[in-house]
Amino acid sequence: LNRVATGDEIVKFDADGRQLSGTLIAPAIKAPGVSFVHGWGGNQEQYFTRAAEIAALGCMCLTFDLRGNEPSDPEHETVTREHNLRDIIAAYELLSSRPNVDRSAIGVVASSYGAYLAAIVTSLRPVKWLALRAPALYKDEDWEIPKQQLKSEELAAYRRSSLSTPENRALAACAKFEGDALIVECERDDVVPHPVITNYRAAFESVNSLTYRILKGADHRLSEDRWQQAYTSILVNWATEMVVGARESGSTPRAHTRLRPSPQRGPSTPA
Amino acid sequence: LNRVATGDEIVKFDADGRQLSGTLIAPAIKAPGVSFVHGWGGNQEQYFTRAAEIAALGCMCLTFDLRGNEPSDPEHETVTREHNLRDIIAAYELLSSRPNVDRSAIGVVASSYGAYLAAIVTSLRPVKWLALRAPALYKDEDWEIPKQQLKSEELAAYRRSSLSTPENRALAACAKFEGDALIVECERDDVVPHPVITNYRAAFESVNSLTYRILKGADHRLSEDRWQQAYTSILVNWATEMVVGARESGSTPRAHTRLRPSPQRGPSTPA
Repeated sequence: LNRVATGDEIVKFDADGRQLSGTLIAPAIKAPGVSFVHGWGGNQEQYFTRAAEIAALGCMCLTFDLRGNEPSDPEHETVTREHNLRDIIAAYELLSSRPNVDRSAIGVVASSYGAYLAAIVTSLRPVKWLALRAPALYKDEDWEIPKQQLKSEELAAYRRSSLSTPENRALAACAKFEGDALIVECERDDVVPHPVITNYRAAFESVNSLTYRILKGADHRLSEDRWQQAYTSILVNWATEMVVGARESGSTPRAHTRLRPSPQRGPSTPA
Repeated sequence: LNRVATGDEIVKFDADGRQLSGTLIAPAIKAPGVSFVHGWGGNQEQYFTRAAEIAALGCMCLTFDLRGNEPSDPEHETVTREHNLRDIIAAYELLSSRPNVDRSAIGVVASSYGAYLAAIVTSLRPVKWLALRAPALYKDEDWEIPKQQLKSEELAAYRRSSLSTPENRALAACAKFEGDALIVECERDDVVPHPVITNYRAAFESVNSLTYRILKGADHRLSEDRWQQAYTSILVNWATEMVVGARESGSTPRAHTRLRPSPQRGPSTPA
């Protein structure tokens, strides 16, 4: 009973030149965990600043590099969605197995290709918060084809179409997702066009809350600093509401849907 | 901006035998700090279990050994209150300088001789929560006399007397203490008799809250397990109210005085 527990830190400290012995026992409160998934060709650095801001809210954050994404990587031509999905699952396991992380409060923040895979992860692991910026879509049947070999014209046509939720693995996962979702659209995105966002928005039929925001004038890569900052601001505001709200209420924030209606269509009807 | 901050942890982890690189960014929330001060002749072990329970509330806890307290210590015959006061201050500095400790939320939990010194510490360092079990009293004028050489008969007479707050350094410190105080009396204490507790209770005239409890039938050393457990239970209940209350309200718990009136005298009048 009266033993020093594993993880306690034995400290020696000085009082007037006399060395004293002590034991530091760390606070045993578990923090939410948030994993950050970059887009195709990117790396973890793009999420360092955002991860630090969300860590300041009291979360344990994990950024990481998906395999084969860097163009100089020898696997760049052969890596598939299956490979990178396994990477995201491995990162999830690392984060959720940390002793000070609350396994029941894991969030995933992701962009583009990473956001598409993160949506699928919600069907494989418990995810409480899901933030998707410019989430991409890919055909299920090309799952094992290396990412770099997907035909871009065919993909572009697929992304302009209106999809029913069951016909796409990522959208089907979103349909069953019961946590809190954030969708951030880039207004001038020529990689992930508006119909993709509409398909995602329509798919989230079981969520606890949905927040939809548009980055005015932004391109897919957020090539201007002001768009980067606007995304950070949206993400951190949303995370503050979710994480601090969950801490204050002792549970998830109350169910509510906050949609920013688009003038072309109703708030929750796909085009 | 996009650099890994000091304290971030570079992690390597495995996905299907492929090693991935990641960065863990720890939650940047500060915890209250609680220091535990044992009584004369004791050591830090007597507080290990209690410190672990209070760490479970989200506090960084520090137990430590006061110099010269163990009878086998070469300084046992020469150590003074001044020495041990410096030890407690050094422990305070160690704890409050930890990067994840909230310097404005430091508590001190102490027993007997340690409780007497802890009361004095509140006049030298900011203390938010002060828990005194069987706090002892000593004459100011003997301050530099080694603890082990104090005359026990003279001390016993002093402890039976009713003292005005200004005439004792510990009581004077209590009078200016504006945080939350807990006093735990041992009902059958033949070292720290009831008038000492009465003097302490009367001294706390500026507190935010005062909680007074009696360990029924207990002796000074809590020589029976059930008394040890009863003390732990009182201490942890009080710490829960203080720490969780401060977290929920974003500040100190609301001002209130909870006195368990003794049949012999009014709740706040010294005998």
